[in-house]
Amino acid sequence: MKLENSKGTKDFAPEEKIVREQAVNTLKSVFELYGFNPLETPILNRFELFESKYAGGDEILKEIFSLKDQGDRKLGLRFDLTVPLAKYVGMNPDLKMPFKRYEIGRVFRDGPIKTGRLREFWQCDIDTVGTDSMLADAEIIAVADAVFKKFDLDFVIKLSSRKFLEGILDFSGMDKEKRIDAIIAIDKLEKLGENEVIREMEQKGISEDAVAKAMSIINMKGSNSELLSRTKGLIKSDIGIEGLKEIEEILTYCNSFGIGTVEFCPSLARGLAYYTGPVYEVFLKDCKITSAAAGGGRYDKMIGAFLGGTRDFPATGIAFGLEVITEALKEKKAFEKKSVTQVFVIPIKAQKEAVAAAEKLRKDDVNTELDLAGRGISKNLNYANSMNIPYVLIIGEQELSQSKVKLRNMKSGKEEVLNISEVAGKIKGK
Amino acid sequence: MKLENSKGTKDFAPEEKIVREQAVNTLKSVFELYGFNPLETPILNRFELFESKYAGGDEILKEIFSLKDQGDRKLGLRFDLTVPLAKYVGMNPDLKMPFKRYEIGRVFRDGPIKTGRLREFWQCDIDTVGTDSMLADAEIIAVADAVFKKFDLDFVIKLSSRKFLEGILDFSGMDKEKRIDAIIAIDKLEKLGENEVIREMEQKGISEDAVAKAMSIINMKGSNSELLSRTKGLIKSDIGIEGLKEIEEILTYCNSFGIGTVEFCPSLARGLAYYTGPVYEVFLKDCKITSAAAGGGRYDKMIGAFLGGTRDFPATGIAFGLEVITEALKEKKAFEKKSVTQVFVIPIKAQKEAVAAAEKLRKDDVNTELDLAGRGISKNLNYANSMNIPYVLIIGEQELSQSKVKLRNMKSGKEEVLNISEVAGKIKGK
Repeated sequence: MKLENSKGTKDFAPEEKIVREQAVNTLKSVFELYGFNPLETPILNRFELFESKYAGGDEILKEIFSLKDQGDRKLGLRFDLTVPLAKYVGMNPDLKMPFKRYEIGRVFRDGPIKTGRLREFWQCDIDTVGTDSMLADAEIIAVADAVFKKFDLDFVIKLSSRKFLEGILDFSGMDKEKRIDAIIAIDKLEKLGENEVIREMEQKGISEDAVAKAMSIINMKGSNSELLSRTKGLIKSDIGIEGLKEIEEILTYCNSFGIGTVEFCPSLARGLAYYTGPVYEVFLKDCKITSAAAGGGRYDKMIGAFLGGTRDFPATGIAFGLEVITEALKEKKAFEKKSVTQVFVIPIKAQKEAVAAAEKLRKDDVNTELDLAGRGISKNLNYANSMNIPYVLIIGEQELSQSKVKLRNMKSGKEEVLNISEVAGKIKGK
Repeated sequence: MKLENSKGTKDFAPEEKIVREQAVNTLKSVFELYGFNPLETPILNRFELFESKYAGGDEILKEIFSLKDQGDRKLGLRFDLTVPLAKYVGMNPDLKMPFKRYEIGRVFRDGPIKTGRLREFWQCDIDTVGTDSMLADAEIIAVADAVFKKFDLDFVIKLSSRKFLEGILDFSGMDKEKRIDAIIAIDKLEKLGENEVIREMEQKGISEDAVAKAMSIINMKGSNSELLSRTKGLIKSDIGIEGLKEIEEILTYCNSFGIGTVEFCPSLARGLAYYTGPVYEVFLKDCKITSAAAGGGRYDKMIGAFLGGTRDFPATGIAFGLEVITEALKEKKAFEKKSVTQVFVIPIKAQKEAVAAAEKLRKDDVNTELDLAGRGISKNLNYANSMNIPYVLIIGEQELSQSKVKLRNMKSGKEEVLNISEVAGKIKGK
C-alpha cells in the first residue's frame, strides 16, 4: 500500500498546527469577550438538509460529499456552518433571542483543487440571530477589528450594503432580471479589474449606458463622509436610501466602538445570493494573499425561509478564514515554533532526579520535555536544537552534589548553575 | 422537511459545549506541559488505509463510513486517531524520535447506538512513538494523573502488562490458541463479574483447571508490593517475568514522578489485540459512569507492521474519553454555565455610552454582552437571569450625570454605583 493523503486533504505537522491553535485560541477569546457562546453541530447530517433551496443552491449541492449509513439513510458532510446554525435554531424554538453563537470546525467540499483550496478545511463563524438592529452588525465589525488588532496584522474593513447596491442599480436603470449577474460581476472587481468586470456585464446583455452609470458610483473613491454625501445626491430609490441609512448608522456605531478601520466601499458586493443588507469584508495589507481574511453580512430572510417561513429570523454574521490568517501569521513569523516545549531536561546518570526536576517545572507551568530515549548529552543537545527548544536543563552528578542544576540558553549558549526553584522564573524571563 | 439530526449525532448547546471546551483546554494544557505537540490529520482518508489488516481488523471495517469523491475514489471517515498517526509517521520518515504528539478530534463509527454511544464523537489521544523505554509509559501515566488532578476528580489508575497476562496464562497451562478468547473474557471482569467471565471462558472450551488457575492470580487483591511478591512466586515463564519487571519498573518511575494513584491490577486486560506490553486504565470514583475515563498501553508492533515491517516503531499511548470526563464534570457541576458572558450591559437612553463601557470592559478582559435588541430594563434583567449571567451593568442618565455606572450582582441582588474603571476589578473579584 502506498501511503498518501486523499486529494484535497493534508496533515498539519506540529509546527503548522501550533500556529493554527494560536489563531483559533485568539479567535475564541475575542468571540467570548463579545459574549458569543460556543456551539457544536455535527459534521454528518441528513442529506435532505442540504437539498433545501435555501441551503446553498445547486452550485454547492454538487460539491457535497454524500454517503449512506448501515440503515441506508442518505447523509452528507456539512459544507459550511450557517446551514447547521439554521437547523439548530429551527430545532430549538425556545432559544433566547438574540442568539449569539460561534462555531469553529471543519467543513467539506468536493470541489476543484486550486492553490490553497482544500476539500477539508476549517471555518470560524460568529452570528447574531434574532435582531435587525444595525448595532448587531456594528458589533460583528467590532469583533473583526479586535481580532486583527490582537493578531497585530495591518488590515482594513470594507463596508457596504446590498440595499445601497440595489440603489446603484436603480440609478443605472438596469433591468431587474440582470441584477444578480451584475452583482456577481461587481464582486470580482478587486480580483479581475474594471475592464473585465465591464466586459462581463456587457456579455450578460446589460446595456452600455447602465454599466457606465453603475460604474460611476462603484468606482468612487474618498473618505467615508465624502462618499456618503456624494452618493446621497445620486441614490433616489427607497431601497437605496435605506441602504445609505444603514451604512451611516453602522459608521456612527463604529465611532462609539472606537473603530477607525472601517471604509465605506461602494464596490463591495459579496457573491452569495442570500445577503439582504450590510456586507463587510476584512483585507490584510502587506500580505501575499489578496483574498479576504474575513467576510460576512446580514441575511434576514435565509433562516426563516429555510425553516418554512412561519417566523422571521433576522441574522448577521461573519466567517474568518483560518488559512489566510495562519498564512499571514507565518509570513510575520509571529509564532514560529517547532515544538511547544520550553525546556528539555537531560539527565547525566541522574534519571530519578531529572524526573523530579521535570515534574517541578511542570508544576510551575513550564512546558517540559524529558529525555526518554536514554541518549548521550550531545545527541540530546542536537535534538533540542533541531526542535528549536529554547532551553536545556542538565541534571548531572557534579551539579547534584551541590543541589544545583545547569540551565543552558540554546540561542546564546549561555549556561547558568541554579537551584531548581529558580529555573521556571529564568525561563519565563522574570 | 422535518428538521432532525442524523442517527447517532447531536448538537452540543452552548451550556454543554462550554464544559467540553473547558475539558479540552485542560487536556491540551497538560499535554503541552509534558512536551506533547499538536498534530492535525484529516477526517477524510483513502479507504485503502483502513483495509490494512493492522489498521483495526474486520470488526471495525464494518463500522467505517465510506464514500466516493467526484473522481470516483473510495474514501472513508477515520474511526480513531491511531491509524492516522501510523500513516503520518510512515509518510514522514525524517521525524525526530521519540515523536510525542497529541491529537484531539472527531472520529466516526457506523455502529449500533447504545446509551451514550454516538456515531460521531471525539477522541483525545497522546502517543510517544520511537522508544521502548518504560519511562515513556510512566510519563503517559503521569499525564493521566496530572489531567484528573487538574479536573479535581477522584480517580485510580490501574496498571498491568500483556506480558504478565501471558505469564498468568502460561501458569494456568492454557492452550495457546484459546488465549485471545481468554483475554477478551477477562477484559469484561469489571463489567460482568467473575461468574460470567468463568462461564464465557469455559464456553470457549478452556479447561476448568486452566480457568481456575488463571482466576487465582487474576482475582488477587493487595498492595502493589504484596501483589508483586505473591505473583513473583508463581509466574515462571520468561515472558511473564519480563511483564512483572516492566510493571515494577513503571511503578518505580511513578515514585519519581510522585504519583500515588497507580494500582497494579492483575485483572486488567484491555480488549484490543495490538497491545504488547504495559496496559493502563483510569477509573473515576463516585461517578455514575463506570466505564474507563481513559485507557491505553504499549503497542510496539502495530505501526511498524502497518508500514510494511521494514522498521520498528515501538509506541505507547492513551486515549481520554471526552464524554465520560464531561459527564463527570457535569455531575460535579464544575463548570455550570449557560453563557461565557460575565456581565450584561443595559443602556437606559445611553446607547453610545453603553457601547463605550462594554468596549472598556472587553479591553479589561471581561466577557461582556451588550443589549442589541433595544429592550426595556426588566426584559433585559430577565434575559440576563435566564442565561445565568452573574453581573448586569446599568448605564442610565442618572448615573451618567455623575460619571458613574451601576453594577448589579444577579445572585445577591446587591447594587453598587461605581466608576467604570472599577467594574472589571469587582467582577473579577479583586
